[in-house]
Amino acid sequence: MQRPVLGFWFEFGSTYSYLAAMRIEALAHDRGISLDWHPFLLGPIFRKQGWETSPFNLHPAKGAYMWRDMERTREALGLPFRRPDPFPQNGLMAARIAHVLRRGPWIGAFVRAVYAAEFGEGRDISDLSLLAGLLTDSGAPAQDVLAEAESTEAKIGLRAAVTEAEALGIFGAPSFVTPDRELFWGNDRLDDAVDWALRTVV
Amino acid sequence: MQRPVLGFWFEFGSTYSYLAAMRIEALAHDRGISLDWHPFLLGPIFRKQGWETSPFNLHPAKGAYMWRDMERTREALGLPFRRPDPFPQNGLMAARIAHVLRRGPWIGAFVRAVYAAEFGEGRDISDLSLLAGLLTDSGAPAQDVLAEAESTEAKIGLRAAVTEAEALGIFGAPSFVTPDRELFWGNDRLDDAVDWALRTVV
Repeated sequence: MQRPVLGFWFEFGSTYSYLAAMRIEALAHDRGISLDWHPFLLGPIFRKQGWETSPFNLHPAKGAYMWRDMERTREALGLPFRRPDPFPQNGLMAARIAHVLRRGPWIGAFVRAVYAAEFGEGRDISDLSLLAGLLTDSGAPAQDVLAEAESTEAKIGLRAAVTEAEALGIFGAPSFVTPDRELFWGNDRLDDAVDWALRTVV
Repeated sequence: MQRPVLGFWFEFGSTYSYLAAMRIEALAHDRGISLDWHPFLLGPIFRKQGWETSPFNLHPAKGAYMWRDMERTREALGLPFRRPDPFPQNGLMAARIAHVLRRGPWIGAFVRAVYAAEFGEGRDISDLSLLAGLLTDSGAPAQDVLAEAESTEAKIGLRAAVTEAEALGIFGAPSFVTPDRELFWGNDRLDDAVDWALRTVV
């Protein structure tokens, strides 16, 4: 049997992406699927809707619900949580780095390290020295990766990821895409997405 | 042990409310909780956000996702599905009727009958003769209930339900409110809400 590949689309500013990112690699391993990591940006997609910030900031009732729901869900998952200020954080550089790393051995560790710093400790993930430290902690050659993340190729590559996300119908994060292009949106739907991916391989 | 009461907030135009409404009474029975039925209207809440129709109509990618997700989920739940036209339907009269019935013996059957007609058969739920027939099928005295649903009291009562929903922080449907006022939003969260409600009784 072939291992199905699940596309994992995440945005570093997104709280629910944190909940999915911290567990998706272990879950994929346990359930026998492979992951295709897709860092992307929601900002350009939201701006096309006329939104200049997160919908959780634009709609106070929805935002209040999200923060409370985050508290409940992170507790059920045994994850630390500290609300970063400002929210959402500027995750552009972290996303460029993850784009560079996405097919290599350090991607899982780096993504978890960024989310843990941001939502576990409330740190500023646009801070380059923080990102360099997280790269080193993840085992990656920090200076080389940072230089590559600043390259035109990485900038264009991340922009292309946003375009690809839109083409797949993605409008929020986290999102999961199965081999037959079924889209599942939200941390709550990760298990459904894995179930679906497993059914694509017979 | 006292049976906890879960508040079920539903809007007749809402697709995900359909998925919750068709199974919530059986689920509540199985799990030993009572239900407090709260028909309400999302229109006035959406209009305060500047939305003149459903967010699924305003945001094409989100709408396309919802229709596909509805197809998957209704299949998993074994429910029929037919997209009503127009969407969303005008559920004002159905909501007034449900408001009148909300504490009586026919509420569950009537709510399911309306949703089944709307999303199972794609029928127009603003049609008074359809609603009269569904009331009769549910065992309710149709003409008396319809007359009461047209009363000023019912109109004011339903408007008050919208105000109460906003005070509870509700911004979408279905929503579930536990005895200690924890809010859970979405059909996906029904089981979590029941779990939480059961933990409020020791």
